[in-house]
Amino acid sequence: MRKTINERINALRRWMEEHGMSAFIVPSTDPHCGEYIPARWEARQWLSGFNGSAGTVVVTTDEAALWTDSRYFIAAEEQLQGTGIRLMRDGLPDTPSITEWLTARLPADSTVGTDGNVNTVTAVERLQTELTANGMHLCTSYDPMETLWTDRPAVPAYPVVQQPLLLAGVSCRDKLEHIRRICRKAQVGAFVLSALDEIAWTLNLRGSDVHCNPVFVSYLLIETEGPATLFIDADKLTDEIGDYLHGEGVILRPYTAITDAIRAYRGSSIGLNPAATNYTVFGAVPDGCSIRRMPSPAARLKAIKNEAEQTGYRNAMLRDGMALVKFLRWLKPAVEAGGQTELSIDRRLTALRAEQALYRDISFDTIAGYGAHGAIVHYEATPQTDIPLEPHGLLLLDSGAQYQDGTTDITRTIALGPLTDEERRDYTLVLKGHICLARVRFPDGCSGTQLDVCARYAMWQEGINYLHGTGHGVGSYLNVHEGPHQIRMNYMPEPLRAGMTVTNEPGIYRSGRHGCRIENMQLIVPFRDTEFGTFLQFEPLTLCPIDKTPIVREMLNREETEWLDTYHRRVYEALAPLLDEEHRRWLEDATAPLEKTR
Amino acid sequence: MRKTINERINALRRWMEEHGMSAFIVPSTDPHCGEYIPARWEARQWLSGFNGSAGTVVVTTDEAALWTDSRYFIAAEEQLQGTGIRLMRDGLPDTPSITEWLTARLPADSTVGTDGNVNTVTAVERLQTELTANGMHLCTSYDPMETLWTDRPAVPAYPVVQQPLLLAGVSCRDKLEHIRRICRKAQVGAFVLSALDEIAWTLNLRGSDVHCNPVFVSYLLIETEGPATLFIDADKLTDEIGDYLHGEGVILRPYTAITDAIRAYRGSSIGLNPAATNYTVFGAVPDGCSIRRMPSPAARLKAIKNEAEQTGYRNAMLRDGMALVKFLRWLKPAVEAGGQTELSIDRRLTALRAEQALYRDISFDTIAGYGAHGAIVHYEATPQTDIPLEPHGLLLLDSGAQYQDGTTDITRTIALGPLTDEERRDYTLVLKGHICLARVRFPDGCSGTQLDVCARYAMWQEGINYLHGTGHGVGSYLNVHEGPHQIRMNYMPEPLRAGMTVTNEPGIYRSGRHGCRIENMQLIVPFRDTEFGTFLQFEPLTLCPIDKTPIVREMLNREETEWLDTYHRRVYEALAPLLDEEHRRWLEDATAPLEKTR
Repeated sequence: MRKTINERINALRRWMEEHGMSAFIVPSTDPHCGEYIPARWEARQWLSGFNGSAGTVVVTTDEAALWTDSRYFIAAEEQLQGTGIRLMRDGLPDTPSITEWLTARLPADSTVGTDGNVNTVTAVERLQTELTANGMHLCTSYDPMETLWTDRPAVPAYPVVQQPLLLAGVSCRDKLEHIRRICRKAQVGAFVLSALDEIAWTLNLRGSDVHCNPVFVSYLLIETEGPATLFIDADKLTDEIGDYLHGEGVILRPYTAITDAIRAYRGSSIGLNPAATNYTVFGAVPDGCSIRRMPSPAARLKAIKNEAEQTGYRNAMLRDGMALVKFLRWLKPAVEAGGQTELSIDRRLTALRAEQALYRDISFDTIAGYGAHGAIVHYEATPQTDIPLEPHGLLLLDSGAQYQDGTTDITRTIALGPLTDEERRDYTLVLKGHICLARVRFPDGCSGTQLDVCARYAMWQEGINYLHGTGHGVGSYLNVHEGPHQIRMNYMPEPLRAGMTVTNEPGIYRSGRHGCRIENMQLIVPFRDTEFGTFLQFEPLTLCPIDKTPIVREMLNREETEWLDTYHRRVYEALAPLLDEEHRRWLEDATAPLEKTR
Repeated sequence: MRKTINERINALRRWMEEHGMSAFIVPSTDPHCGEYIPARWEARQWLSGFNGSAGTVVVTTDEAALWTDSRYFIAAEEQLQGTGIRLMRDGLPDTPSITEWLTARLPADSTVGTDGNVNTVTAVERLQTELTANGMHLCTSYDPMETLWTDRPAVPAYPVVQQPLLLAGVSCRDKLEHIRRICRKAQVGAFVLSALDEIAWTLNLRGSDVHCNPVFVSYLLIETEGPATLFIDADKLTDEIGDYLHGEGVILRPYTAITDAIRAYRGSSIGLNPAATNYTVFGAVPDGCSIRRMPSPAARLKAIKNEAEQTGYRNAMLRDGMALVKFLRWLKPAVEAGGQTELSIDRRLTALRAEQALYRDISFDTIAGYGAHGAIVHYEATPQTDIPLEPHGLLLLDSGAQYQDGTTDITRTIALGPLTDEERRDYTLVLKGHICLARVRFPDGCSGTQLDVCARYAMWQEGINYLHGTGHGVGSYLNVHEGPHQIRMNYMPEPLRAGMTVTNEPGIYRSGRHGCRIENMQLIVPFRDTEFGTFLQFEPLTLCPIDKTPIVREMLNREETEWLDTYHRRVYEALAPLLDEEHRRWLEDATAPLEKTR
């Protein structure tokens, strides 16, 4: 492998020489700016051997380096050994930026290359500004992988299916009209969609081109006073889907025709989101056409779930809840009996979900972290890391499913037996944070940044914090991570509105010891209109008991205990009628009021 | 008066005609972007008769209009009657922006004027972009008031005094060196300070040119590898001050020489904060010199109080607390005896403060709002609005003083007798918000936006909110409103750091009924270093009992009651040794633990 990596890097160097470039940058992103990358665009992994989800390789004529963040320092160090690629630890004070590193190495007037097709407009412009300020040039016109990567996977071509109107709630035609109204108001002649979940949502279609995300590789150009054109490989579509799209006013063209189509666009203005559109598409906009940078109308419309979608989530949660109750009732005895591991329980949970109606897939790779593994925030058990579960300590289990009527995402931290005081205290602080955020009511239009502290107040009192976000939107049989709103410490201006889904997932991670996180999906619903305006609140969507055994009772106040008991009553009332007697009795115990719990 | 206004507007129209302008914009700001405006720059009031603190007049050849916000809708309507100036209610959905209004009235290619000297760079650039997009031009070169306003007040010229090093803590020379280090790091050859409190802080000087703010009108140009030049009218300075400045390496030039000095600047770059620098100064930067837009180094350094300043606040709070205890003990019997009004109690409070050592002035115009007046957030009692205080209902009292060792700002809401249930509940919700924010601990560098919800959580649960900010910095014998940090709903990225002062002032306002607000000044101090980083907390600086009589006891939980009792013990222990027996006994009662209170 190490030899292969060296050969690939040297091939890239020869290509760079032929093209007059002194350096080439290979990021981990794809043309659609997605979270999961189809194999075709895993060029950074092909070139470097490093398989983390985030990382950028930079190659010069005699050096190569990979920038990645703290999640991957250890893995990257291992995987880069012997490749000659140097690890640059992103975020550490002494680590130079890519531009600083290049500036120290390249002569003035050097040309640096990167493939515009796999970089957002925002990323390219930032790089361009930095390089230019240091006397270098950026070239974004070439994709060297086209020739160097001889066995490169093709653009994925799985079949596309319709999302029934009964579940989508609004027809494709109506969604396109709504987007056009927004474009008309913004005075743009067309809008380019390249985010795959936005295209799937707009067209009421789903695919399976991307791991865990039911989307299909394509672009969608929506003209304000003309047709919508879907750029997609035609062999993905049945005649029925073709007819359906035709009926909704959507024209079909080949996937690769997008840049030519943009180049030939004769309108006076085109809208796009620079943070979600690749630079090659952006660069194809003709000179006479002005570019309007704006949030994607589809992203904003998609975030607010209609009645049909809300009903879908509620139904999907009943089935997900049943699978989870069956799993949880099984878990502790199974661990006590021995022989269970992180991977084996993941298989069991997935099998129980797969039994449910409308199950399609998992919604992301399960995080089943036992003991110290629970403290690795992005842990994914592999045969190499898998460990047996023992009847003590905490198991952190973050998982979710794609049902045709709704996507789920839930984390429970489960005591497999006796716990340390620190584990019990940390668990209770996380629960207090979860409850404080779950209970909050807030003015319509409040941002996630404003609410984030609710989930952290209790742990901050003890000098504890977590560095990930507190909440994200979840798609309706779409991506499990969905914007544009979020709840997190960084500034996220997007207002929270009734109809949005958002997770609530505070956590505490003690490196080498344990991790806990408690996550429910929530729906934003109206609370009350008063003389001070409209107020909103969260309705919990997730239906699954929260383990009571680790709770330090005296750390919960009356409101917190009441919230937990009310939530548990809700879970019991929803799931009990769907369960057999044995599971019903287990659930009754698991959801009994805290003061009646042994 | 109305006739005078008409004459002034017509004179401006003749001037516009002579200068080829189709419209002229007169804002409410001054060359130093301050909150209080010296009379010389109250051109908007001179032109329109409207005396609110915020408002912009726009005059065309045949129309005139004034934009102001909801605080002033009623006052502006009254004051504009008969002037022919139309009131434009800023913030209402149907109110056009100034540019929209001008676009609908002026032919293409029209020139619009405004005085660059009284507009920030940010304000001019926004206007310029908007006007240009609509085919108009902006001219910022003239100040018509120079000729039209024949009895215009002069630039204020009160004497400047030194702030003793014992109180300032750091010498002027050291502050200049610190600013230069920041400039060197930012690679700028010089920085222009035009915010008056930043200049006063840097030079350890104080003045009295501006109402309630101990500052003096001037500019300060700090060269990174050269001298600092103070632009000021020389007759404000004694020989002693002149010698002192000379000794600290500060050169003197006349106030009006600033633009010529900038024009003659031969360095390659100059730093300035576009939101705090006027456009005329900005426009004087010569072509060969690049402008670096950056936060003012002085603003950031000033925000973090040194040991001497912290000691100063603590000492000033003891004296302010004594004055407040004397006032509060006197208040209720005085109201019961009759004859007291909003203005009379303000005079009493100011007199009690003026008895204290190192008292210099009030720090802002007292807000003493009784009953329904308490709901008017920026209420300032006048002989016309003044009302008698009766032994029932709530009095909202927001006041502060300038002591030479520290500026104070405190709000107490006091029950003058029986209250309604709504008053008691609102008061308790405000207290809960105050306590939640006062108790919070948070990671070093957290922003005010992140903490804001702490003060609102309890009232949001009931669908109640307030629209002002929750906290602002307070100067050290300087401006009572000081940045760059704030605690508020809007995005305020400036991180909170140990050593900063910040107020904690949630409120509830019921139009036509009552208002309550509870405000303490707080100092940010270290809490603890843990494996999760450095955590900070608030130390209350203000020493004054919080009225317990309106509290609905069952709405406070154990932690909240504990906080109040602890705070009151702190107040008692600090002030009791300084009071005579009668006041000490009153304070003992006012600060007794809640459960021991009748």
